[in-house]
Amino acid sequence: MALPITPPKKLEETPDNIRTRVELMVMRVQAQVCKALEKEDDCSTFVVDRWHNDKTTGGVNCILQNGKVFETAAINIFVSSGNSTETELPFFSAGISGVIHPKNPMIPSINFNYQYIEVKGDNRVQWWFGGSTDLTPNYLNTADAVHFHSTLKKVCDKHDMSYYPKFKKWCDDYFNIPHRGERLGIGGIYFDDLKTPNQDACFKFAADCADAVIPSYIPLVQRHKHATYTQAERNWQLHRRGRYVEFKLIYDRSSKFGSGARSGDILMTLPLVARWEYMYQINATSPEGELLAVLRKPKDWIEECSCSDHLKE
Amino acid sequence: MALPITPPKKLEETPDNIRTRVELMVMRVQAQVCKALEKEDDCSTFVVDRWHNDKTTGGVNCILQNGKVFETAAINIFVSSGNSTETELPFFSAGISGVIHPKNPMIPSINFNYQYIEVKGDNRVQWWFGGSTDLTPNYLNTADAVHFHSTLKKVCDKHDMSYYPKFKKWCDDYFNIPHRGERLGIGGIYFDDLKTPNQDACFKFAADCADAVIPSYIPLVQRHKHATYTQAERNWQLHRRGRYVEFKLIYDRSSKFGSGARSGDILMTLPLVARWEYMYQINATSPEGELLAVLRKPKDWIEECSCSDHLKE
Repeated sequence: MALPITPPKKLEETPDNIRTRVELMVMRVQAQVCKALEKEDDCSTFVVDRWHNDKTTGGVNCILQNGKVFETAAINIFVSSGNSTETELPFFSAGISGVIHPKNPMIPSINFNYQYIEVKGDNRVQWWFGGSTDLTPNYLNTADAVHFHSTLKKVCDKHDMSYYPKFKKWCDDYFNIPHRGERLGIGGIYFDDLKTPNQDACFKFAADCADAVIPSYIPLVQRHKHATYTQAERNWQLHRRGRYVEFKLIYDRSSKFGSGARSGDILMTLPLVARWEYMYQINATSPEGELLAVLRKPKDWIEECSCSDHLKE
Repeated sequence: MALPITPPKKLEETPDNIRTRVELMVMRVQAQVCKALEKEDDCSTFVVDRWHNDKTTGGVNCILQNGKVFETAAINIFVSSGNSTETELPFFSAGISGVIHPKNPMIPSINFNYQYIEVKGDNRVQWWFGGSTDLTPNYLNTADAVHFHSTLKKVCDKHDMSYYPKFKKWCDDYFNIPHRGERLGIGGIYFDDLKTPNQDACFKFAADCADAVIPSYIPLVQRHKHATYTQAERNWQLHRRGRYVEFKLIYDRSSKFGSGARSGDILMTLPLVARWEYMYQINATSPEGELLAVLRKPKDWIEECSCSDHLKE
């Protein structure tokens, strides 16, 4: 676990403060995710890049590039406070964001992002949590999709039975590339402005979601990391990464500049390699076409699954 | 030369109409540029993709991918009319755009784009010309930069001595990536809203600029296409292409959707392959560092050149 961004003494003095709890939580999740990924990558190690813009804004970026299994894995945490460049109101935010692009096209990519935000206006502090975890496969595997969504649904159901259906739809709506008529991947969960029923419950929900990254994703890595693939399948993966770049640069709010983070950090979630091939032909009945059909029309993974899907490798 | 987009009979009936003149000009330039590139690419041939959205909007895309010299070369023309999605006013536009990404990192990339636009409002037709040609090298070569800028300056000077300095600066300002603190390349010329001294003079200037693409660029291809290069130099080129993707998707007005063109066409100028390597280290005194210095602080190529620069290979 890297050293905290806030001076340790300050954290020790305010153990019950929500800011302290969030910072310690994202530090713990960052360490656990990096450790789990290093283990899958044959003990490759993350490079740790600590940065500070000033006394109140800094972060720890952990990056693994050109590993054996992972082409790019970036697991970052940050703590930031100051005055918003847009509203000029004082704010505080802290969070974790991760993106994992494996080498093998049979392993899906994953994005996740959980944060706590406070804004002070009219002498009142407003706070909320936001976050998401979503899966971007290159090839559709129903068992993967069902495992991933079921893991997230279980976390949601523990807190509120209305969360999963609502946040699943929000995710499909958010990770969308309108100019291509395609979703980025097969979704997951996305929420923002979460402030009910109370701060403690929201914190625990965000923490549980962040803790679900490993059990939702690592089994898919293990399932496919030794799969063989062709150059054509690798090209399709890089073509899908091109779509990821388009989404990140054109639509994703988290890629917008001005939040105090360094541009290189904001864009470190971009894949190591991406391709744009003009008039790339996809046969509707091919495995690539099968994925595209789902990207064009998201489906409900949990209702539609049958037992035999779980057994499919 | 591909068939025109507008029915030939209509073009024949209106030979002096500015719309006809622009369409014939862009058809001619497209054919000439494609022919010149095919010749440099050891007689590879462009794929021609004609498209129509409706009776009044269509285009001809010529694309060469994975050639011997050119990784992607896309030379497109279009003719479009209808009602603007923004202002709802009737408009007409026709133009040519081209982007050439060579394989060899020692050959610069080039973008160019020339168009004529008419908008009708309050029963009055407003018209103007816009365009640009700019060079994106991966390695700085002063002789290349001087040849490229001199060719453009000569065309500008023929029409108006104030054009080159004004349009050179406009180009440096436009092809800018603020979040990286870098220009896209070493510039060229950029102009918009050109309507003086008269329509005929503006047309001739735009046509002369479009005609300057071949003499400004092909000599650089010939000079470097047999140069040897390392994998590290190739990676640097793909890293620079990542910057190109960022510029196109975040800042370039010509990449904005809603103009009636298909999204795949708008984005066909993206490179076949791009890379994002986090914490990519550049030594300030290396050839890569030498280019970066110029991208961070554009310079005047023509004033600063000396005869010996021209002889440098």
